[in-house]
Amino acid sequence: MFTIKNHLEKRDSHLTIGGVDTVDLVEKYGTPLYVTNEQRVRDNFRRYSEAFPDADMYYAAKANGNFTIMRILAQEGAGADVFGDGELYMALLAGIPKEKILFNGNSKTDRELEMAVETGVRVSVDSLDELNTLSRIAKSQNRTINIAFRVNPDVSPDTHPKISTGLKTSKFGIPHQEVVEAYKEAVELEGVNPIGMHCHIGSQILDTSPFDEAVNRMMDLVEQVKRLGVELEFLDIGSGLGIPYKKGELAPTPKDLADVVLPIFEKRSKAIGVNLKLIIEPGRYIMGDTTVLLTTVNTMKHAAKKFVGVDAGFNLLIRPAMYDSYHHVVVANKVDAQISSLYTVVGPICETGDILAHDRELPEVEKNDIIAIFDAGAYGFSMSSQYNGRPRCAELLVNDGQVDIIRKAETYDDLLANQLVPTRFL
Amino acid sequence: MFTIKNHLEKRDSHLTIGGVDTVDLVEKYGTPLYVTNEQRVRDNFRRYSEAFPDADMYYAAKANGNFTIMRILAQEGAGADVFGDGELYMALLAGIPKEKILFNGNSKTDRELEMAVETGVRVSVDSLDELNTLSRIAKSQNRTINIAFRVNPDVSPDTHPKISTGLKTSKFGIPHQEVVEAYKEAVELEGVNPIGMHCHIGSQILDTSPFDEAVNRMMDLVEQVKRLGVELEFLDIGSGLGIPYKKGELAPTPKDLADVVLPIFEKRSKAIGVNLKLIIEPGRYIMGDTTVLLTTVNTMKHAAKKFVGVDAGFNLLIRPAMYDSYHHVVVANKVDAQISSLYTVVGPICETGDILAHDRELPEVEKNDIIAIFDAGAYGFSMSSQYNGRPRCAELLVNDGQVDIIRKAETYDDLLANQLVPTRFL
Repeated sequence: MFTIKNHLEKRDSHLTIGGVDTVDLVEKYGTPLYVTNEQRVRDNFRRYSEAFPDADMYYAAKANGNFTIMRILAQEGAGADVFGDGELYMALLAGIPKEKILFNGNSKTDRELEMAVETGVRVSVDSLDELNTLSRIAKSQNRTINIAFRVNPDVSPDTHPKISTGLKTSKFGIPHQEVVEAYKEAVELEGVNPIGMHCHIGSQILDTSPFDEAVNRMMDLVEQVKRLGVELEFLDIGSGLGIPYKKGELAPTPKDLADVVLPIFEKRSKAIGVNLKLIIEPGRYIMGDTTVLLTTVNTMKHAAKKFVGVDAGFNLLIRPAMYDSYHHVVVANKVDAQISSLYTVVGPICETGDILAHDRELPEVEKNDIIAIFDAGAYGFSMSSQYNGRPRCAELLVNDGQVDIIRKAETYDDLLANQLVPTRFL
Repeated sequence: MFTIKNHLEKRDSHLTIGGVDTVDLVEKYGTPLYVTNEQRVRDNFRRYSEAFPDADMYYAAKANGNFTIMRILAQEGAGADVFGDGELYMALLAGIPKEKILFNGNSKTDRELEMAVETGVRVSVDSLDELNTLSRIAKSQNRTINIAFRVNPDVSPDTHPKISTGLKTSKFGIPHQEVVEAYKEAVELEGVNPIGMHCHIGSQILDTSPFDEAVNRMMDLVEQVKRLGVELEFLDIGSGLGIPYKKGELAPTPKDLADVVLPIFEKRSKAIGVNLKLIIEPGRYIMGDTTVLLTTVNTMKHAAKKFVGVDAGFNLLIRPAMYDSYHHVVVANKVDAQISSLYTVVGPICETGDILAHDRELPEVEKNDIIAIFDAGAYGFSMSSQYNGRPRCAELLVNDGQVDIIRKAETYDDLLANQLVPTRFL
């Protein structure tokens, strides 16, 4: 056995995941096929938790909302960062305790806020307008809800602009200059109890230095809020830790992040005289590298490039088309074969942008080969669609040789689901 | 009544569509809500057909795959451009005759080709590799299938690079220099009968001049193929006609396109001595402006910008986030109100890029107002996802005051649909 990337290995020139031969999986379950290694989910979660031994980990459910995945993370002791009623429903159903769920969101419906109050989770409040709505709803239910404010810290990490969330012009949060005023208002209002502070600076961040700036800015605010007489119980700094998608790419580990964050957090907590629970919201780090997307080569074409036409496209993995993201690919049934030439792996979607991998060095690719797309566990299935009339594919969970279907492939029925045809068209 | 844009009108300062007050619709059906005007679908289709009286219109199903929409277009006499087995299934089920369906696609599975042969539709073959696979499959079923080749004409329209399909480096089609050779091969092979030629140069094209170049190039090839002794029956030139998303934007009409295409097509057909059926594949033109997406204002925030937080995001309409597309927006319950200031309309998705409209002049916007997003009928619902755990919304069909639900809103059940939890997690 030789490790190809992290937990992915090879056996007889086939790619394996969780001790299972991917070629066997394709034979049995077909493609496209998402395959997640349970042990890797647990290992990633534990590595992050151990780097922050006193912090709570609120899993960012948007990265991968599969029910079984949330169940695994519930078993590991995770809380959840949910961004809507659907994610809240799933998190609670999966057994994540309500005390460890933070209901985030820049634009929550009244119904969502009602659900937050009913279920007793914490709410990260994004604006004064929302604060007032939430107070009104909580009062009407005769309850008090624990809240944090989402702060826009105006810190700019070096990542794709579409996923950089902490810039001044971002839609998220209350400008940091106005946050203290927001706590003042919250103290005055019934139904809301300010116990935390929250920020999130972005996603796929490969340099920890902006966290230094963000945590310092947050602790400045904690200090100012304390002077108001508000004793906060937690500080949620989000996450956004990047992972290495490219071979040889360097990405900080949770330990690297802890080395930046914890000294500042502890020193300043002591100086200010607060005893805050630190909360982290990892998503991509937990799920990204746990999963491969397996896809079959339908057809080969030598035109301006050597095109490898596969059966998964941006309907199933939108990151390359939407964010120009890089995903490593290998020929899963030829892991040992010699590199032959440059190939461009394209999906079956009717758009020019449906390209999964540009100009990659691969062994000679032939029809019916299996392409494995790495690091597809975060923002993969969760962003999938039925575009071009394509039923979504199955998801498998593998663990030490065991295989379970955790989501069945959709059929044509699922395209027609919920559709009604007016009788005049029958 | 005063026309706001095309078929959209206003009554008592409310936006109406198909004679129905959008505010009433929201009261009854909630938001987010897609609303399509049946008559506008028919009118758009007829306008295009009338501009090309001798051509066949193959509706590009990917633009909007709703079953009832396909049924309406079947009633209008449309054929279909389908790009996968799911779209083929839906088109046939909706009653589009198999003789008027072209199965397109750059990466078809063997199963899809089998289905094409079984159902007797035409196939647009994208590569020599596919040609050989199709011949083998047709022979194994003892059938002969009518085919065209998808030609890459190397013509570059001025549109977004992700939807420009006819560039040399595009994944689509056979390079035009190699097409004659492909027909030679097809003539030699059993099971495949070359009767057509196909190209498509892009989408949302606002200048008809590249069609001049494309049609001339295609007719050059028709001429060369005729010299081989192959009598083609049809030429499919795709479509890609843009629509005016911005107020005052000029877009060519089908008549403008016909004025460019038909003289060349007719003159050259006569000169070459061929009698081809012309085929057009409109999608966006038919559906784009037929539909509004209605969304409720959840919350207002004055930060770096005046943010209007609504309940629809790129889960339901991905074009602004993915292609930086512009969609006109109005406050549906205040159509007559005076412009107040610049607002940025943002969705509830946990990504900075989830912005539906930047810096738009709108009347004073308040919580619970209804924002109508125009021109959401093409690449709207068809590209929707359940990202951030959000059930997809309902679709209504309106027609001259009548309202029908053509797709029910999803519920949490639909998030859990097809999911299986391994027993060890129960």
